[in-house]
Amino acid sequence: MQGEIEFWFDFASTYSYVAAMRIEEASARVGARVLWRPFLLGPIFEAQQGIKDSPFNVNPARGLYMWRDLERLCAKYRLPWRRPSVFPQNSTLASRIAAVATEESWGPDYVRAVFRANFAEARDIAARRVVESLLAQVGADPQAVFARAELSENKPRLRELTTQAVRLGIFGAPNFIVNGELFFGQDRLEDALALLSE
Amino acid sequence: MQGEIEFWFDFASTYSYVAAMRIEEASARVGARVLWRPFLLGPIFEAQQGIKDSPFNVNPARGLYMWRDLERLCAKYRLPWRRPSVFPQNSTLASRIAAVATEESWGPDYVRAVFRANFAEARDIAARRVVESLLAQVGADPQAVFARAELSENKPRLRELTTQAVRLGIFGAPNFIVNGELFFGQDRLEDALALLSE
Repeated sequence: MQGEIEFWFDFASTYSYVAAMRIEEASARVGARVLWRPFLLGPIFEAQQGIKDSPFNVNPARGLYMWRDLERLCAKYRLPWRRPSVFPQNSTLASRIAAVATEESWGPDYVRAVFRANFAEARDIAARRVVESLLAQVGADPQAVFARAELSENKPRLRELTTQAVRLGIFGAPNFIVNGELFFGQDRLEDALALLSE
Repeated sequence: MQGEIEFWFDFASTYSYVAAMRIEEASARVGARVLWRPFLLGPIFEAQQGIKDSPFNVNPARGLYMWRDLERLCAKYRLPWRRPSVFPQNSTLASRIAAVATEESWGPDYVRAVFRANFAEARDIAARRVVESLLAQVGADPQAVFARAELSENKPRLRELTTQAVRLGIFGAPNFIVNGELFFGQDRLEDALALLSE
């Protein structure tokens, strides 16, 4: 068996954290390659729902449930968890770097490092020094990566990914795409991968 | 192993349909008894989100995904599926009957019959004659059941269930409660039941 699974995520998204930490192992079991697709939920929530905040903050009942659910999911999958002091974090900077990093050998490690910083270490992923230290931690050259992300041909990448997410019908995160089928929600990872076994 | 699982559902909810058709068999596997809890999402959506329609209609991207997802889930669980011509259907009448029916031996059959009428047969579950025919179909006496539902001590039941749903932190459907833990979404049925095996 083989194939590809696109993983569409936002670093600010709690359920994307769980998916990001699980996807490599789950995909490896069916021999699938992960294609990492960072994008920004903010502009999508604003355009589709007219809100400038996370739906989990806008609707406190949903938020209350989500925080408890995250604790449970992290226990289930044995993932470290620490509720961030700021939610949602501004994920633009970390995502702009991810948009040029995901093709690199250290790209997936960088993605996991950012998620861990946000949801296991309660660090400020909007701070350039934090992103730089995460890049160094995964063996990349922070200055070179930032310089590359700022090149005129690379700068629009994140916006293009977000536009593409809208075209794909995305309205939240995380999402998986297998054989052109969109799956929304971290708990649908296995259903998405099952398409590759049919 | 034994225990109880509360199943909170709205007849208008597509994902509640999938859960309703799966829950008895899944619960039987772990020896759990199902407690059926009909309630109305409409007042909750209005109070929490300020909308008078399904969130799947309010946000077309979410709606488009949901309809495709339902086809897939029904194929996965081998459930009949026919997209209703009206969505969401007004589920008040059928739910008022469910509020007095779920303790009856034919109660669970009635719940499944209403869901099937809505999502497999595209019938109008807001019509009294449809609800009457579903009651007859499961072996109940339609006139007697309607008379009972209209007794002054029974009439407030559905509203009380909806109030209780809010108190439990419910913001959508379906939901499962096991050992005081709330699980939202039909795909969390197995996680909820797993609490009984711990």
